[in-house]
Amino acid sequence: MSVQTAARAVWRFNPPVGVLGAAAVCGPKEGNGPLAADMDQVFDDLYLGQRTYEQAEQQMQQQACRIALRKAGCDVQQAELLLSGDLINQITPSCFTARALQIPYAGLFTACATIGEAATLGCIAVAGGAARRVLIAAGSHTCTAERQYRYPNEYGCQKPPHSQSTATACGAALLGDIPAAVGICAATIGVVRDHGVCDPFNMGAAMAPAFADTLQRHLAATGSSAADYDLIASGDLGRVGISIARELAAAQGIRLDDTRFGDCGVSLYGDDPSVFAGGSGCGCAAAVGWGYIYRRLQRGEWRRVLLIATGALTSPVAGQQKESIPAVAHAICLCAKGGEC
Amino acid sequence: MSVQTAARAVWRFNPPVGVLGAAAVCGPKEGNGPLAADMDQVFDDLYLGQRTYEQAEQQMQQQACRIALRKAGCDVQQAELLLSGDLINQITPSCFTARALQIPYAGLFTACATIGEAATLGCIAVAGGAARRVLIAAGSHTCTAERQYRYPNEYGCQKPPHSQSTATACGAALLGDIPAAVGICAATIGVVRDHGVCDPFNMGAAMAPAFADTLQRHLAATGSSAADYDLIASGDLGRVGISIARELAAAQGIRLDDTRFGDCGVSLYGDDPSVFAGGSGCGCAAAVGWGYIYRRLQRGEWRRVLLIATGALTSPVAGQQKESIPAVAHAICLCAKGGEC
Repeated sequence: MSVQTAARAVWRFNPPVGVLGAAAVCGPKEGNGPLAADMDQVFDDLYLGQRTYEQAEQQMQQQACRIALRKAGCDVQQAELLLSGDLINQITPSCFTARALQIPYAGLFTACATIGEAATLGCIAVAGGAARRVLIAAGSHTCTAERQYRYPNEYGCQKPPHSQSTATACGAALLGDIPAAVGICAATIGVVRDHGVCDPFNMGAAMAPAFADTLQRHLAATGSSAADYDLIASGDLGRVGISIARELAAAQGIRLDDTRFGDCGVSLYGDDPSVFAGGSGCGCAAAVGWGYIYRRLQRGEWRRVLLIATGALTSPVAGQQKESIPAVAHAICLCAKGGEC
Repeated sequence: MSVQTAARAVWRFNPPVGVLGAAAVCGPKEGNGPLAADMDQVFDDLYLGQRTYEQAEQQMQQQACRIALRKAGCDVQQAELLLSGDLINQITPSCFTARALQIPYAGLFTACATIGEAATLGCIAVAGGAARRVLIAAGSHTCTAERQYRYPNEYGCQKPPHSQSTATACGAALLGDIPAAVGICAATIGVVRDHGVCDPFNMGAAMAPAFADTLQRHLAATGSSAADYDLIASGDLGRVGISIARELAAAQGIRLDDTRFGDCGVSLYGDDPSVFAGGSGCGCAAAVGWGYIYRRLQRGEWRRVLLIATGALTSPVAGQQKESIPAVAHAICLCAKGGEC
């Protein structure tokens, strides 16, 4: 197993790093959405039986990790490293999950792009010979994130139509150095892009340039075109971000076909108007990636998917200080056997 | 160059990953302390000419990165990956530094242990063949962190004698795949430990068990003893944490000799009573490591130092919700030529 540098911060893994087990879990609203059948567990209570939403989020991440390990046939002791993150200040749900699982822990944060960062660093560790089993996870909870970044949901604040709604969801996967039905054959770490968007409700517009940049870098370095993928999935651009991303990509000569380009934040909720322009949050790309996308690759319905997790690196304090919103996007190429890029 | 797994999440890098350039910068109080001569730059203004403390912190991290690159004789474009973090919610100083430098960016967070995490993941990337040049950084600012975690310094709140004071400091290093006067020959990623400490002023007590655990794991896996190091440096246990750590280590049969065991948080300020039990913050281990320690290894005064960065994974929200404070510690072994472990 080896890592090859295709360009600056773009890597190929040959043979692909194996996804030995993957899990997607979600909350009640997501469990009533179009991807319900692709979830490993749906929680019908936003509290998950805990006292606080933060503890509920931690439980959700823990559960996703345990399911991914179980599906891989591994116990906690076999995981050598846990790479995980979330949206909460000090990424406490991830820290407390690491305390519960007792796996050596490296916390990560690039907002909703975190699952892409975790997968890429995990693949580098596995393919580079540093670990045989790396557990990765990312999650978000609508009640913790909305309260922290904007307003508590209970407050009932009006939101503009271009706003997005944080998903209650988590995705986890165990990466390993043996072949599996689904693997990761390439990855790109993003460069931070900032086109001056300052509206904390308009994450899609803030993230679209980062998505387009990572897409262009990944395709150029791997010598592939958009048509080579059964699906190119953005993390959570939402409907506003998607249309901007499509324009930015077109300006670089990349045609994002309607039938092969989708957004995890939109897919997770379908036409549900209560999430406005779509879902967001670390759990969005993580749960759609390790649920919906992973299962279709595993069943052989698809051969190759490019998942580009997008993160708005915003903070309420930075916003109050009139900073614009930087964004980053990390890409991973998921492949079925024979679908390696 | 290769990575060898010595035990779960303990690695040897053979030959050592080269520290091609390193930088330590700090604020006015640290610049009046005993390690002033080991700093590459001392800022005499806590605002660094910016409008806000958060922007000052970002400028400080940016400056540390630029000095590390310059000392390595590299320009920004040669750095393939930036691994960095800090204490601020959403690690915004790191995000904005990544925006300024335009290096592919993976954000990290394990509180004051972040520089250990960054160095370890950086070494895995370099020794595993994923990158030839990785820039790592971690920093903290007393005015941003104290306000966010406890009270604004300006408020003049009384603090207990076991409390610590966040350092205004940042450390950065460029890691590479070529030999250098100083290298990193081994590293350990920590397991989260929680002994039930709930007092947000008592970080030293919260972190000591994680320090002792990582020390024991690192020594056992590398077959070394405490006497094999010119210095074992804890990140920022402070005076209270040091004495607990010494007891915990002794219970495991590890004798931490006064002359060869030190704490970055204590060293940075000497006997200054205004920091109470000592300094803390991501910048503490980072600046002492890439200033004081790095220079002594570079000059050949020391041959081998074990730097164990310690992080209290606390959050004001978790504290209000009556959670105890989990902690983690990551170790890196820094060596001069011939001092490899």
